[in-house]
Amino acid sequence: MTVTQLLDVDNMARWIQRDGVENILAGLSRYLESDLRRWQDFEKIPRLASHTDFGVIELMPTSDAELFSVKYVNGHPLNPARGLQTVTAFGVLADVDNGYPVFVAEMSLLTALRTAALSALAARELAQPDAQVHALIGAGSQAEFQALAFRTVLGLEQLRVFDIDSLAVEKVRRNLEPLGMHVHIAESVDEAIDGTDVVTTCIADKSHLSVLTADQVRPGTHLNAIGGDCPGKTELDPQILEDARVVVEFEPQTRIEGEIQQMPRDFPVTELWEVLEGTAPGRVSAHEVTVFDSVGFAIADFSALRFARDATEGTDLQTWIGLVADPDDPKDLFSLLSQPS
Amino acid sequence: MTVTQLLDVDNMARWIQRDGVENILAGLSRYLESDLRRWQDFEKIPRLASHTDFGVIELMPTSDAELFSVKYVNGHPLNPARGLQTVTAFGVLADVDNGYPVFVAEMSLLTALRTAALSALAARELAQPDAQVHALIGAGSQAEFQALAFRTVLGLEQLRVFDIDSLAVEKVRRNLEPLGMHVHIAESVDEAIDGTDVVTTCIADKSHLSVLTADQVRPGTHLNAIGGDCPGKTELDPQILEDARVVVEFEPQTRIEGEIQQMPRDFPVTELWEVLEGTAPGRVSAHEVTVFDSVGFAIADFSALRFARDATEGTDLQTWIGLVADPDDPKDLFSLLSQPS
Repeated sequence: MTVTQLLDVDNMARWIQRDGVENILAGLSRYLESDLRRWQDFEKIPRLASHTDFGVIELMPTSDAELFSVKYVNGHPLNPARGLQTVTAFGVLADVDNGYPVFVAEMSLLTALRTAALSALAARELAQPDAQVHALIGAGSQAEFQALAFRTVLGLEQLRVFDIDSLAVEKVRRNLEPLGMHVHIAESVDEAIDGTDVVTTCIADKSHLSVLTADQVRPGTHLNAIGGDCPGKTELDPQILEDARVVVEFEPQTRIEGEIQQMPRDFPVTELWEVLEGTAPGRVSAHEVTVFDSVGFAIADFSALRFARDATEGTDLQTWIGLVADPDDPKDLFSLLSQPS
Repeated sequence: MTVTQLLDVDNMARWIQRDGVENILAGLSRYLESDLRRWQDFEKIPRLASHTDFGVIELMPTSDAELFSVKYVNGHPLNPARGLQTVTAFGVLADVDNGYPVFVAEMSLLTALRTAALSALAARELAQPDAQVHALIGAGSQAEFQALAFRTVLGLEQLRVFDIDSLAVEKVRRNLEPLGMHVHIAESVDEAIDGTDVVTTCIADKSHLSVLTADQVRPGTHLNAIGGDCPGKTELDPQILEDARVVVEFEPQTRIEGEIQQMPRDFPVTELWEVLEGTAPGRVSAHEVTVFDSVGFAIADFSALRFARDATEGTDLQTWIGLVADPDDPKDLFSLLSQPS
């Protein structure tokens, strides 16, 4: 019988607990960097999005010569008000050679991990090398993952966090202080970013916001902008982008979905893989403002699925599901209907 | 805990055995017709295809106001030579309102059923009303499903089948004679189509074939062409199309993938939903040649998933998988990592 390996949500959580969030973030960063440095191997397609007034459902496929991956992911900003997750996701790896699905995984947790690991990888190239403090605007589901990735990859032990939802901010403190992080709760955006060189903006609202204005951003800041990720959903004042160097995952997609949807079509950007590969520079001066305009791209999901599969292979964390019909004679699919049930 | 219902391959087979192939084909036809008659309700997107020299992996999404569906499906013509299925598939239904996946099903069997049910529905509108005999060119995985759908919907008890693979042809006889069908094995295409008004062509090869030439097709024939379904993969002589009235599922997709990829961009076609709705005619004379140029479209998968879910709901055929992370506080995804594992 041909089976598809499954890493369900309980086993995903168990894996992360067993190996440790920060070990997994570190491993994920390695897989992400290694895949992004072979950018030309991948088939790159802007994701397919089905929009409604209240949310979006997206499919994010990519493929190298060996594996095809696709992530299903939704974004419904009104979900938390009724006790549901804003974002849920799952993904599939398939064997390009024969087309069979080989691995299915929950990706709500895995997406939070990969988004954070990718943000930290970008910040490693773009933030001031002596940065000490991470400011976080938005304390939703992604917050703790971002904070831990920046500690793992950049050594940022100090977090300053602001959100209009004080319960969410308390949640971040409650989750992170036991892990040894120093969490300062700020009463305003200005207080959160005071004295910080690295600022993450991560707001779920599907509208054009200006979480930060240009005059709030001091020279040398690195902005990790992960909330603006679909048409009509941005969080930075366009003037900030005008004055900054902007790095993106995949330009054709980010022009549609990222902060730069607010900018002219010829606004210059750099793709992250170029920086990782060394064909484009990272930070070039202590004064420039850098922005990682992150919307989430399929290759990062590919890397995350590949890492999760490799890291749990042969363990009791993987179970299986029967998605592939497998008659003895491959031309005799019908025979499955005459076997004893 | 939020779970996603699962109809795996064993339970799909069990369901079809339990309810009977022909009952299911009849039920599927009703769902297909009802969904196609509300064509304007659906978001229609040509499928997303990832091609290699030896196969294709496709994603087929669609959505009405309530449900989103996507099918994963591959097509690898060289698979049977190594004991694997040419086509495997699975699909997902999600709730548009909150974005959560609600139902996952194997779709190798289900695709064979829905393709056959749709072919029969088209033939009901396009074939001679007094047709008696169904000729089948190609005896692969789809063959028995096509034959049974044409018996269920059109009453065609007699089958004439040809394939260059004599074992495949014997398989069709072995599977269908116990169900009371009259199966004649033909030694050539000419012998297979002799005296028939309904001809199904269903060849897996990824190349431009002429299974039939124009002079072989007698007036009044309905051709159900289901093999040609991606760029570079056709099975009818273009002259046949030139002389026929061609009905398709969704014109923009069929122009790329169907038999009509061989024709000029302005070659006239009719969409099947128009015929079912009555805004375009079915067969208009006893002499015209009609072609259903079927490539497989997402709305048919939507209908098939919806039918399979409804028909197995509340039975032991549905199991479940945990794909959705579901913390008590929706903004506290991280809390899943601090629960006892």
